[in-house]
Amino acid sequence: MRIITLDDASMKNILADMLRRDPNNYDSYTKTVEAIVENVKNRRDEAVFEYTREFDHADLDASNIRVTQEEIGEAMAQVDEGLLAVMKKSMDNIRRYHEKQKRNSWFDAQPDGTILGQKVTALESVGVYVPGGKAAYPSSVLMNIIPAEVAGVKRIVMVTPPGKDGKVNPVTLTAAHLAGATEVYKVGGAQAVAALAFGTQSIPRVNKIVGPGNIFVALAKKAVYGHVSIDSIAGPSEILVIADDSANPRFVAADLLSQAEHDELASAILVTTSMELAKKVSDEVDGFLKVLSRSDIIAKSLDNYGYILVADTMEKAVETANNIAPEHLEIVTANPFEVMTKIQNAGAIFIGEYSSEPLGDYFAGPNHILPTNGTAKFFSPLGVDDFIKKSSIIYYSREALEKAHKDIELFAESEHLTAHANSIRVRFEP
Amino acid sequence: MRIITLDDASMKNILADMLRRDPNNYDSYTKTVEAIVENVKNRRDEAVFEYTREFDHADLDASNIRVTQEEIGEAMAQVDEGLLAVMKKSMDNIRRYHEKQKRNSWFDAQPDGTILGQKVTALESVGVYVPGGKAAYPSSVLMNIIPAEVAGVKRIVMVTPPGKDGKVNPVTLTAAHLAGATEVYKVGGAQAVAALAFGTQSIPRVNKIVGPGNIFVALAKKAVYGHVSIDSIAGPSEILVIADDSANPRFVAADLLSQAEHDELASAILVTTSMELAKKVSDEVDGFLKVLSRSDIIAKSLDNYGYILVADTMEKAVETANNIAPEHLEIVTANPFEVMTKIQNAGAIFIGEYSSEPLGDYFAGPNHILPTNGTAKFFSPLGVDDFIKKSSIIYYSREALEKAHKDIELFAESEHLTAHANSIRVRFEP
Repeated sequence: MRIITLDDASMKNILADMLRRDPNNYDSYTKTVEAIVENVKNRRDEAVFEYTREFDHADLDASNIRVTQEEIGEAMAQVDEGLLAVMKKSMDNIRRYHEKQKRNSWFDAQPDGTILGQKVTALESVGVYVPGGKAAYPSSVLMNIIPAEVAGVKRIVMVTPPGKDGKVNPVTLTAAHLAGATEVYKVGGAQAVAALAFGTQSIPRVNKIVGPGNIFVALAKKAVYGHVSIDSIAGPSEILVIADDSANPRFVAADLLSQAEHDELASAILVTTSMELAKKVSDEVDGFLKVLSRSDIIAKSLDNYGYILVADTMEKAVETANNIAPEHLEIVTANPFEVMTKIQNAGAIFIGEYSSEPLGDYFAGPNHILPTNGTAKFFSPLGVDDFIKKSSIIYYSREALEKAHKDIELFAESEHLTAHANSIRVRFEP
Repeated sequence: MRIITLDDASMKNILADMLRRDPNNYDSYTKTVEAIVENVKNRRDEAVFEYTREFDHADLDASNIRVTQEEIGEAMAQVDEGLLAVMKKSMDNIRRYHEKQKRNSWFDAQPDGTILGQKVTALESVGVYVPGGKAAYPSSVLMNIIPAEVAGVKRIVMVTPPGKDGKVNPVTLTAAHLAGATEVYKVGGAQAVAALAFGTQSIPRVNKIVGPGNIFVALAKKAVYGHVSIDSIAGPSEILVIADDSANPRFVAADLLSQAEHDELASAILVTTSMELAKKVSDEVDGFLKVLSRSDIIAKSLDNYGYILVADTMEKAVETANNIAPEHLEIVTANPFEVMTKIQNAGAIFIGEYSSEPLGDYFAGPNHILPTNGTAKFFSPLGVDDFIKKSSIIYYSREALEKAHKDIELFAESEHLTAHANSIRVRFEP
C-alpha cells in the first residue's frame, strides 16, 4: 500500500479522490434508471416481468413472483445446521441491541392546562432491498429486517433479484423468514424499487424503502424519494483505522483488507502516528495478498482508494477521520476510548484491537447498514428510528388558550394571516 | 363547502385528487431546477448573483450577499415592541419543547467484556431555508433554527431571498438573530439550495438543508439529496378536522379556513359523524368568507381541495384521517384523547376544541414544519432528531471475541468474504 505523509495538500487530494466514488456522479445511469421507474409506474407488473427477463434472465409472472411458503420450507431444509445456529445467535444479538433503540411516546402535562408531547408510531409497511445475484448476504437480510420488526412494522416486504432459475438463494430466504419478513418478491434493481414505491398488481406499495444495492438501486431510491421515504443512498464501502505504535500491524492489515475485498470502489485507509507501524502494515498487506481468495479485487481496491497516512499527531489523525467520515472506523491506540470522544463523524466506531470490523458485520448486534462515502457527517446507521415516525401532540384547555390568545392573534396578524388570527379570536367572542 | 357522504368511492376520488398536489409531479420544473443546480455547482458565486438578479431583481455580490451585524442592528430597531415580546414568549415555548427531544448517547456494558452503544453527535453545520418575497414568516424562522440550536449545531446558516432593494425583511432578520442563526445570506430559490449543498466562494457548504419553500426549493432539495441530507420535501399545507356533534361549528369553520388561506393548493377537510354539524360548518364558512381579508385565496382553495365528509361511524372518520395522513389533524369530539389513540398518520394532532391549529403554528412549542401531502405516513415534524446523527459503538474484549470468533468466521465464509473471516482469524493464530 502507498504510504503518504499527511499534510493539508495530501488530505485535500485524498478527499477529492474519495468523492469521485459518489453515486450522485453517475449521471450516465440517471436517465436509464428514470426510464425504468417511469415504465414500472405506468405499466406495473408487465414492466417488472420484462425487466426481470432482461436483467436477471428469469421468466417470472404474477403466478410465481412472490415466494411461497413451500419455497421457504424447501430453502430452510437446504441450509447448513452450523450456519443456522450462528445466524440465530447473531439474530439474538441484533434484536437485543435494536430493542434498546426503541422510543416511547412522551408527554409533558403542566398544571396550566397544557399537554404537549410526541406520539411514536411504527410505519405500517416497509420494503427491504436485499442484493442477490452472484452471492447471498444473509447477514444483510437480518440487519435490514430485524430493526423493522423490533419497531413494530406490520408489513415487511423483502425484494431480491432471482437467479436465472427464478429462485432466491436458500440462505437469503431462510434469513428473511427467521428475521420476520412478511412477504418476499423475486425482483431486483431499479424495477424493484419502483414497484415498492408505486405498487403493481403483484407487489404492494410501501411507506419506506431501505437497504443497500448497486448504483441502479441507489439512483432509483433517490428518484422515488418523496413518494416514499428511503433510508439513505448507499455508496461504496470504506474502513479507516486510527492506530498508534501500540497497534498490532498484522491485525490492522487484516482489517483493512476485510473492507477492500468488497469491490474495486471500496476504500481502506490507515492513519497512524507511527511510520514504523505504517511500514509493517504495508508488509503485512503484501503477505496477505498472496493468500487471500479475493486478492484480485483487493489489489485493485487498494490501488484505487487504499492509503496509509502518517500523521504528526493524534489530533491530526482524528481530524482526518472526521473529514473523511468513514463508514467503519477502528481505533487501535493505547487509549481508544479517549480518542473516541473526539470522533464527530463515523458510521460505526470499533474500539480496541479485538473489535475488528467483521465482528460488527456479522455478530455483535449493531447494524452493518451504515452511512458510506462521507455521509456519516449527516446520516446514521440503519436502526429502529428508520421505522418509526412521530406526531406532535398539542392540547390546551380553555384557560390556557385564553392566557395566550392575544399574543397568538398579534403574531398571526403580523404575518398577514388573518384567518389564522380569526380561528383563535372566535373562541373568545363575547 | 361541498358536503359529501363518505364511502369507498368518494374516499378513492378524494385521495386521487389530493395526490395531484404532489411536488414530485411537477415534471416541467425538474429540468429548470437541475440546470440551476448544475450551474451553481460549476460557476458558484457568479451563478448565484446572476439568478438573484434574474429572480429577485436584486443586484448583490460578494461584498453584500451576507447580512452584516449592522443590518441586524438596524432590523431589530425596526421591529414593533409588542411583536418582539410575543416572539420571545413563543421562542421560550419552542425551546422548552425541543429541549425535551434531546437524546443521550447510551451504552450497554456487559460483564462478558462487551460494550455496545450509540454516540449521538450534533451535525456540524446546517442550512435553513426561509421563504421571503411578499411576506415575512418570522415564526418559520424560529421553528427552523431553534431545534438546530438546541441540538448543538455549531454553524446555522440561514438563506432567504432578498427584496428588490437587496434587503431582508427586518422581522425575519430579527427572528433569525434571536433564534441563533450564526450567519444569514440573501439568496433564495433553487440557487440557495445548490449553494448550500456545494458551497460557493461566499456561501459555505453545509451538512443538511432544512425548511420549506416553493416548488423550486422542494425540487432542488431533492436534487442535492445524497450530497447533503434534507429534512423532507415540502408540499402544500392541509388540515383535517375530525368532529362529532359535540363540536362548535363556528370554531371548526374558522380552523378549516386558517389552512385554506395559505394558498390555492392548500386543503381543508372536515370529517364528521354529524350531518347537522356538516351543514352548520358549511354555513359558518360562508359567513367567514364575507369578512376575511384573504377570501379570494380561501375560496379557490376550498373549491379545489376543500371537503366536508359525512361518515357513518367514528371508525370510518379515523380511517379517513389515517388514509389522508394530514399535516394538521384536529380532534374535536366528546372523547378526543380516545380518538387520538387510533391515529396512525398525522403531522401534528390538536386535541379538543381549544387547541386550534394556529396555536401550534405560532405559540405552543411543537414545530410547525410538518410532513405535508400524505407524507406523515413516513416523515415526522422537524425536530432535534433532524440535527443529530448516531454512530454505533462496538467494543469486544479478547475474551469476548474469543468466544465468538469461530461463529463469525463461519458466517463470513458462508458469504465467501474470506478477508472478513481472516481479520477475525489472525487474532487467534497460534
